[in-house]
Amino acid sequence: MSQSNVVFAASRNPTREDLFARAEDISADLSRRAADLDREGRPPLGEIVKLKNAGLLNALHPREIGGGGLDWVDGLKLVRILARGESSIGQLLGYHYVNSQYIYWALDAARAHALGSETVARNLYWGAAVNPRDPGLTLTRRGNGYVLNGRKSFSTAARVSEYINANAALDDKIAGFAVPTNRPGYIANDDWDNIGQRLSDSGSVEFRDFPVYEEDFVGAPAAPDAAPPVLSTFNTPFIQLVFVNFYLGTAEGALQAAVDYVRTTTRPWLTSGVERAADDPYILERVGEFTAALKASTALADNAATAVQAGLARGRDVTARERGEAAAEAYAAKVHATHVSLDITSRVFELTGARSTADKYRFDRFWRNVRTHTLHDPVFYKAKEVGEFVLNDKIPEVSLYS
Amino acid sequence: MSQSNVVFAASRNPTREDLFARAEDISADLSRRAADLDREGRPPLGEIVKLKNAGLLNALHPREIGGGGLDWVDGLKLVRILARGESSIGQLLGYHYVNSQYIYWALDAARAHALGSETVARNLYWGAAVNPRDPGLTLTRRGNGYVLNGRKSFSTAARVSEYINANAALDDKIAGFAVPTNRPGYIANDDWDNIGQRLSDSGSVEFRDFPVYEEDFVGAPAAPDAAPPVLSTFNTPFIQLVFVNFYLGTAEGALQAAVDYVRTTTRPWLTSGVERAADDPYILERVGEFTAALKASTALADNAATAVQAGLARGRDVTARERGEAAAEAYAAKVHATHVSLDITSRVFELTGARSTADKYRFDRFWRNVRTHTLHDPVFYKAKEVGEFVLNDKIPEVSLYS
Amino acid sequence: MSQSNVVFAASRNPTREDLFARAEDISADLSRRAADLDREGRPPLGEIVKLKNAGLLNALHPREIGGGGLDWVDGLKLVRILARGESSIGQLLGYHYVNSQYIYWALDAARAHALGSETVARNLYWGAAVNPRDPGLTLTRRGNGYVLNGRKSFSTAARVSEYINANAALDDKIAGFAVPTNRPGYIANDDWDNIGQRLSDSGSVEFRDFPVYEEDFVGAPAAPDAAPPVLSTFNTPFIQLVFVNFYLGTAEGALQAAVDYVRTTTRPWLTSGVERAADDPYILERVGEFTAALKASTALADNAATAVQAGLARGRDVTARERGEAAAEAYAAKVHATHVSLDITSRVFELTGARSTADKYRFDRFWRNVRTHTLHDPVFYKAKEVGEFVLNDKIPEVSLYS
Amino acid sequence: MSQSNVVFAASRNPTREDLFARAEDISADLSRRAADLDREGRPPLGEIVKLKNAGLLNALHPREIGGGGLDWVDGLKLVRILARGESSIGQLLGYHYVNSQYIYWALDAARAHALGSETVARNLYWGAAVNPRDPGLTLTRRGNGYVLNGRKSFSTAARVSEYINANAALDDKIAGFAVPTNRPGYIANDDWDNIGQRLSDSGSVEFRDFPVYEEDFVGAPAAPDAAPPVLSTFNTPFIQLVFVNFYLGTAEGALQAAVDYVRTTTRPWLTSGVERAADDPYILERVGEFTAALKASTALADNAATAVQAGLARGRDVTARERGEAAAEAYAAKVHATHVSLDITSRVFELTGARSTADKYRFDRFWRNVRTHTLHDPVFYKAKEVGEFVLNDKIPEVSLYS
Repeated sequence: MSQSNVVFAASRNPTREDLFARAEDISADLSRRAADLDREGRPPLGEIVKLKNAGLLNALHPREIGGGGLDWVDGLKLVRILARGESSIGQLLGYHYVNSQYIYWALDAARAHALGSETVARNLYWGAAVNPRDPGLTLTRRGNGYVLNGRKSFSTAARVSEYINANAALDDKIAGFAVPTNRPGYIANDDWDNIGQRLSDSGSVEFRDFPVYEEDFVGAPAAPDAAPPVLSTFNTPFIQLVFVNFYLGTAEGALQAAVDYVRTTTRPWLTSGVERAADDPYILERVGEFTAALKASTALADNAATAVQAGLARGRDVTARERGEAAAEAYAAKVHATHVSLDITSRVFELTGARSTADKYRFDRFWRNVRTHTLHDPVFYKAKEVGEFVLNDKIPEVSLYS
Repeated sequence: MSQSNVVFAASRNPTREDLFARAEDISADLSRRAADLDREGRPPLGEIVKLKNAGLLNALHPREIGGGGLDWVDGLKLVRILARGESSIGQLLGYHYVNSQYIYWALDAARAHALGSETVARNLYWGAAVNPRDPGLTLTRRGNGYVLNGRKSFSTAARVSEYINANAALDDKIAGFAVPTNRPGYIANDDWDNIGQRLSDSGSVEFRDFPVYEEDFVGAPAAPDAAPPVLSTFNTPFIQLVFVNFYLGTAEGALQAAVDYVRTTTRPWLTSGVERAADDPYILERVGEFTAALKASTALADNAATAVQAGLARGRDVTARERGEAAAEAYAAKVHATHVSLDITSRVFELTGARSTADKYRFDRFWRNVRTHTLHDPVFYKAKEVGEFVLNDKIPEVSLYS
Repeated sequence: MSQSNVVFAASRNPTREDLFARAEDISADLSRRAADLDREGRPPLGEIVKLKNAGLLNALHPREIGGGGLDWVDGLKLVRILARGESSIGQLLGYHYVNSQYIYWALDAARAHALGSETVARNLYWGAAVNPRDPGLTLTRRGNGYVLNGRKSFSTAARVSEYINANAALDDKIAGFAVPTNRPGYIANDDWDNIGQRLSDSGSVEFRDFPVYEEDFVGAPAAPDAAPPVLSTFNTPFIQLVFVNFYLGTAEGALQAAVDYVRTTTRPWLTSGVERAADDPYILERVGEFTAALKASTALADNAATAVQAGLARGRDVTARERGEAAAEAYAAKVHATHVSLDITSRVFELTGARSTADKYRFDRFWRNVRTHTLHDPVFYKAKEVGEFVLNDKIPEVSLYS
Repeated sequence: MSQSNVVFAASRNPTREDLFARAEDISADLSRRAADLDREGRPPLGEIVKLKNAGLLNALHPREIGGGGLDWVDGLKLVRILARGESSIGQLLGYHYVNSQYIYWALDAARAHALGSETVARNLYWGAAVNPRDPGLTLTRRGNGYVLNGRKSFSTAARVSEYINANAALDDKIAGFAVPTNRPGYIANDDWDNIGQRLSDSGSVEFRDFPVYEEDFVGAPAAPDAAPPVLSTFNTPFIQLVFVNFYLGTAEGALQAAVDYVRTTTRPWLTSGVERAADDPYILERVGEFTAALKASTALADNAATAVQAGLARGRDVTARERGEAAAEAYAAKVHATHVSLDITSRVFELTGARSTADKYRFDRFWRNVRTHTLHDPVFYKAKEVGEFVLNDKIPEVSLYS
């Protein structure tokens, strides 16, 4: 495996230009190594270090605490750029953005400032243990605090997370809290072995008498069906936009790899009448079609990011209706990006031809990556939610999926 | 047929807000009358008067001569809005924009100013007689001037045009000129009878000893293969974006009509288990899918408009490469909008159901309209051009189609 | 309008070869006149006469009473052949087959024989008034018999039917009966005016004190939810296969018309590098794709016809399970034919090009025809029924739609 | 890895029923082990032994020499059945059928009988080394015979083949010959490592002074552009139908695996309102759609097999036109099966959901398998060939691809 030598000095207040340039550099390096990384499928510890060194983990934090001060429109573009190089790394950057920004939406200003400052200063990677389809964490009072026990499957970035947001049952309520993972009793299992997103480190995590303190709580424990403050529910449209952008980045990476291969390697077909595969009328038409589809889907993704960012910018005044309208835009983008990314990652082989199926290229990874993650929640129900909004004026019901 | 009573006083320097509001009003009125208009399929003389009264014909002319001063991003949105109500009217507004703005790109500043001022002052509708697949006009010297003879098929807006751009053979060169249609010898035939865009007045036009003067010429006559100034070739990417936007507007109109019908009229299916068709899971999913596709395609259309507008804003400094890159963006939008508009206008019937095929609704007009015009130039060759740009870095070869 | 001079002497026991040859002749004649027929959209009285003269109405009746003795596999192919020429005529032939064969499935042998013999001898066209979504007929006892009152919308072949199957409420039961339409009180309105299947004569019909006698009854009146004998429920899979075959025939007709037009009329595209449109690589590819799709769908249609015919051949021994398995095959064919016929009839224009949208060709009729009738019952619920069979081993629930 | 204990005594003249039953048994066993087999990706020596023991290798040989006497319609169905269990095994069975039957088409009757008899008696597996895009074998005269030298990439079944058909340059001609692989100088490299068809043993093969004798020749060496006897060119439509059938078998296997998984493992979606995933309306619809598409494509595949078999049955009287018409049918089936198998193998995940992407299931193998082999020759050129036949009445030009 080739070793990358892309290393950046960590820095406070990186500029937008620097962040985008570094993201492009890391992405280019990843794309060169992506076949090997996919083969290995290990937790991407070194890659996270590079994101840290580049200042990318802190890109969305406020400039006054040393962050990059970018908004989500830019943050999601960074996710897309990284995913061009390697889909899982795009995913991990995006998850971190949502998990680490969540503190500004859910905590009071003072605690958010303190936790944000610590995050920036220590360049912390944030994960989560909140999969709502997999309840299983329980808090029990012990002394002045609590202990957390239980197991979560599919905890993305389990082994690279330094801080996490988590939910657990406490009596008949649900408590949310944010905790560092270096306390005793956090066991991240290396049991993610799926056909795609193989570097996403999405294995199970166990908590065994893991200590939790009152001050870790994000708000007071609430009844399971209690409506959370609107601002604190922006994690769902944003995580969905993270999906959108790493799907599209992956598809862009696939198309770029295919175009490079056609230019350099694909042989013209016997009966094509052309001397270069790049002059084949059918290949040209398909490149045009894929390009058009990708441009349309990314244009929608950017519009949706702008809409959700605008809702977020309303702060604690944001209404459920405003959140819902922006979320519907994001979910339309999700539906579209799902179809486009699956179609292109499967069909780039029509450009590259038979020999491009050699395992050494691992060109199938693009499809495996989007195929795996686009199942996170069923696309037909996302389409239905968009339909409910358009046809019946119903905003999406708030949940960790919607 | 219901009579519209939307009438506006013509005014100088209408504001952006007014122009959009008036466009929405006219569009809403058109959509109420669209089934009848489609049935009649006559030249839309009254509708053009309404566009004039609303100031919409002058929306893109400079404010200093009394125009609205809007850029093309806005202008194309106005086309889309009109097309929601009636596809041909969207087409006619967009064609006029390209034909009347062409003077700023192809004439020297003084003549452009003079002709623009006259256009605004007299609220003139501009057409063209330049179909390159249908050569047939000839200029012959007579006295101090020329006479034009010949026939053009498919001259959109033939009967409503007050000024036109035209091309004709002059000896072994091609002369371009801009002339008013009220000179003797302009015969617009009412022979447009096609399955769609039935109000687009796209019949044939004949010139019989039609006088043309030296001062009508747009530049000196040039060899047929001479490269025109780059700025003067912006008519093609813009006319293609006009297509894009009236296709998408038509599809938006179809979806809106279908949504209204489902809400009010469609009966729930026997085995659906729901009491309102608007709660049917399959209908909801399709509304969501169509919405996502439309949003993506319009987002790309807007991006492409921004790109071509940016090229235009470079004025006479714009390079062939800059024009080509912007045009490739526009042609990607064309490819995408073609597919999306055809798919949605055909499939809205899946929402509305069997009884919606009654001829009184004429819901088939949406598909007939986009089906007819999307054949203007083959979509597979547009896709190929985009592919040439992405794969081989070739910008589209300049022509009236590209 | 050109007048056809295809006339055949009516004959007993026509051979299979003759029936197919005559169907081809009539179809070819129809395709020459189809644009005019579509424009007029009148009840096709003359066309039904031609079907009669050709012996086609009697093709499925037993040879011993003078019929052609064909099975349904052949009968459905005849429907397809006719639909190539004109979609409504294919529909009307198929509807007649189901309605007239129904007597063999629902009546006792003696009455079926008598009614069948009369049908063949008098060359009767059979219709129906049984739309289950539109209840509205009521039988009232009067003297020794009954009178029928009420209205049915969408009664295909209302004006050409000489005998009909009908249902009506009688007290709290449903009575089925077969009656000639020449009794007093049958009013077929010429109010079918839809965007497609314009010759299908599917307007409303009213009954005003229309006499019905005990001996007209098909079985005893039954509770609305009573399960009918299995054999008598074969009308639904067969009528669905009629749909399948006239959709496919219509698409075949569209493709044939397009191929003819490309060969003779379409001009090669400017940048295609070929001298004949028929040598254009994109047009060739599309013709290949459409051909493959049509061949696949017709192959499935034929397999499904064989399956349902095999169930029918079991006579009164046929079980609900056997009927259900065969019906699931038919409904899979319905789903497939719906997609294929819509896609091809919309996309043939990509072959023929811009000028083929002239109203004189009416090439849009193919799409309008399948678009109109494919809404008869929602294709997504047909797909669901097939899914229930495959996934949950549930046979389709018997109804007039399933 | 579980060991299969499916073993059959080899037998002469197995019946059709036995052959199909054994194929089903082996297929079922393969599907249980397929995830492991795909992971290992080794030459399937044991699996070929099972095919031998079952009599499947000899199924198409004449009964008079101990074969099964099946025709190609049946043979191709056996390929499909095997591919349901494991795609590569279906491929290998089909390739053997073409390679071993080729002797009847290309050799004189006596030699064909002798070689066929030996093949049946010794239960030989036949491969080939004839990839036309990869010329590289050369025959050189040495003593009374020849030696063969050179290298072929992508020689399917290289390590399991006991007899092969091969082509090589001899002076300025091309010599075809059939030789056993156990002569000195046959080196089959185990270098097939591709993303799909991982058991297909399609690595490179080298010949180093491999002896070839005059009596091995299949006809006299001929000029490279000489037209071969028509009958001897049936290998191409048949190998293309082998592709068709193992693509479809693979898709059938994917759908069956998905259906099993949905029934047993998939959890209903949170907002679905159903208690079993198998009752989800969207999952049911998709199962219905996939079923319809598969049934249509297999129906066409069977029709095409019948057509090519009918041509074959004409023996040496078969004309180029007859071969061409049958081949066009086969290539239409190829186009259709390519699309259907890619679509279904990618989309079954929409049924099974997120957890089904665990690597232990290897459900991605279905898509990887068809994705890999459907690139054998570009589907767009196959569609073009079908289009040439329909539009221009040109039969496919004979080659090893067409």
